[in-house]
Amino acid sequence: MKFGGTSVATVERIRNVARHVRREVEAGYDVAVVVSAMAGRTNELVGWCKEAAPLYAPSEYDVVVASGEQVTSGLLAIALQNEGLPARSWQGWQVPFRTSDGHGSARIAEVDGAGILAGFEAKREVAVVSGFQGIHAETGRITTLGRGGSDTSAVALAAALKAERCDIYTDVDGVYTTDPRIVPRARRLDRVAFEEMLEMASLGAKVLQVRSVELAMLHQVPTYVRSSFDDPADPKPGTLICDEDDIMEQSVVTGIAFSRDEAQITLRRVADKPGVAAAIFGPLADANVNVDMIIQVVSDDAATTDITFTVPAADYERSRAILEQHRETIGLREVQGATDVVKVSAIGVGMRSHAGVASRAFRALADKGINIRAITTSEIKFSVLIDAAYTELAVRTLHSLYGLDRA
Amino acid sequence: MKFGGTSVATVERIRNVARHVRREVEAGYDVAVVVSAMAGRTNELVGWCKEAAPLYAPSEYDVVVASGEQVTSGLLAIALQNEGLPARSWQGWQVPFRTSDGHGSARIAEVDGAGILAGFEAKREVAVVSGFQGIHAETGRITTLGRGGSDTSAVALAAALKAERCDIYTDVDGVYTTDPRIVPRARRLDRVAFEEMLEMASLGAKVLQVRSVELAMLHQVPTYVRSSFDDPADPKPGTLICDEDDIMEQSVVTGIAFSRDEAQITLRRVADKPGVAAAIFGPLADANVNVDMIIQVVSDDAATTDITFTVPAADYERSRAILEQHRETIGLREVQGATDVVKVSAIGVGMRSHAGVASRAFRALADKGINIRAITTSEIKFSVLIDAAYTELAVRTLHSLYGLDRA
Repeated sequence: MKFGGTSVATVERIRNVARHVRREVEAGYDVAVVVSAMAGRTNELVGWCKEAAPLYAPSEYDVVVASGEQVTSGLLAIALQNEGLPARSWQGWQVPFRTSDGHGSARIAEVDGAGILAGFEAKREVAVVSGFQGIHAETGRITTLGRGGSDTSAVALAAALKAERCDIYTDVDGVYTTDPRIVPRARRLDRVAFEEMLEMASLGAKVLQVRSVELAMLHQVPTYVRSSFDDPADPKPGTLICDEDDIMEQSVVTGIAFSRDEAQITLRRVADKPGVAAAIFGPLADANVNVDMIIQVVSDDAATTDITFTVPAADYERSRAILEQHRETIGLREVQGATDVVKVSAIGVGMRSHAGVASRAFRALADKGINIRAITTSEIKFSVLIDAAYTELAVRTLHSLYGLDRA
Repeated sequence: MKFGGTSVATVERIRNVARHVRREVEAGYDVAVVVSAMAGRTNELVGWCKEAAPLYAPSEYDVVVASGEQVTSGLLAIALQNEGLPARSWQGWQVPFRTSDGHGSARIAEVDGAGILAGFEAKREVAVVSGFQGIHAETGRITTLGRGGSDTSAVALAAALKAERCDIYTDVDGVYTTDPRIVPRARRLDRVAFEEMLEMASLGAKVLQVRSVELAMLHQVPTYVRSSFDDPADPKPGTLICDEDDIMEQSVVTGIAFSRDEAQITLRRVADKPGVAAAIFGPLADANVNVDMIIQVVSDDAATTDITFTVPAADYERSRAILEQHRETIGLREVQGATDVVKVSAIGVGMRSHAGVASRAFRALADKGINIRAITTSEIKFSVLIDAAYTELAVRTLHSLYGLDRA
């Protein structure tokens, strides 16, 4: 069971979490609970680091922010004992979660579940584990996995313990066909395939962290997304993220995701010669800019070409500066850009076996007067880049088109 | 160097601490800094524990409260790096400070300074150490030393590193002949003997924790008490706590301490027979009540005796209840008690070689109309128990009597 920051934001909520855990223990399960820091706490700690020095060592940042989960794990262990359950807290270094030394965004190398399993064996002791953190074995120093890392901690621990399932409790009651704030008729999904969830998380759905879904898929950990605000005595089932084969009725499109975190860059009349793509995208890759959609169109002048691509909005200015630096080698004439764009995506493993899924979308969007700036497709999804002003209209259009609206 | 909660209460103050440390590094010292949690933070964390459950496991309490020092150590390491100094934080489990398993009030068994010394050796790296915490080696769990334990951490670490000295930075600029809030003419002492400081701390002076002084005395660690609010570029020397032999001019009385944390219990007309003391004080000792002053007076009736003793004010009600339970075996007739009492003490190693020091005090107090309820003496101190209303008068009287007033 994993509980995020809003689920443990106050001691009262932590006591409520304890009641959720008790229900599962009484149902016969041995339980490990992964917790985040109390909501707002991590931001406060990060703020202090910035106040202490404009440039701070990530290794010390990790020490400061990891204290947030430490507090929550201790408090939840206390609350569980108060519910009459044997319980103890485990910090990342105690389990241990062995990670890389990439302080601030370390990767889990290995999780040793032996101590926790021994507690299950000896006295059905609930393990309360600080998420988001680990230890670098060689230096013995505290590491953190980066924002949202608690989901990853939970799935990695579930895999290490060979758990029957991993329940991610959050402030929503499952995975929806799209954001219900935009489409009120969005439906909660009973089941989503790992690959679909991975695409949804990558394409803007915020319900789960991408790396946690990758891990769940890799280790085939059945993972539920469910609400910590349900009545602990009578919770709803939430959404199961599972193997594609475990989903009986598969629709062609499962969900519509969108991401506002996009910026478009267009290079006009670039010389159409071998090596030009490398000249453009090499320097961006070197600077860790993640280029997403790329389209190339032959321009009026046959010797040149127009190249359009997207980068994360946060990297937009930096990307333009890098391109300016390499203006000569690229043979650049004109750079255009836009940040008021959005990427809307439709995801579904059913696309593999159904042709023409995307083309129906292009027609439907054109009918609504929505101009498509770029397109990318893969086996189980397609994305369109459009003007941000049309976001809601486009999402609702696709949601209806693929029969996702609640009756 | 050790900095307490008020010295690190804000990030701005932590940056000021970094300047104090830089001064010592620039003076050529390798420095280990022990820090407390930001002022108020520990109380907040303890409050959360109490909110989570009325009765909480001390092992989880330790996990929660130890997070406070973790935050400070990380932030100070960042602030030191910002001052251009190599620095890294060390948690209790990393150093490690090996302790007993007495969660909430663990005792330090061993401090391993090897890692910190290696950092000194390799790159003059400042070690920023979380005070107040350790690890129990067998269970691998976080322990804390109890309130005020950071002083003890600092002295123990200084001993382990064979430090030239241990500087305890606090919100006062040294040890005074008595509390300056009560006696404005109190003087800051340049030097105090370990044994005197031990008595002062035990008898109510709050400047240092008793266990830290015991350790300093045991390991002969020269320890300074000084102010973190001094100008980092030009600090005052503070008070040196050192071996008696290192103090040239020793006055007979060095300081006057007082403690309001006392309660008096008088048992009237107890049968004066062998074993009665054991019948009274045995049950109190079994209940961990620390009985201090004891006086026995033969009453009018020669077959009985009156016994007066003091207990900590916090144990007063409990002590009376215990005595009631053993009324039969003690042969108890009447119990009287008072909580509005105060213990005033005069301390000085010079008492060893000077007779009649205490008797001068009794006369001076009597002259002021102050009634003495009980007296205890030892080699280097004497204490009187008086009505709390006379506290200030008694302290000022003794302070003047022994020539401690500032000119």
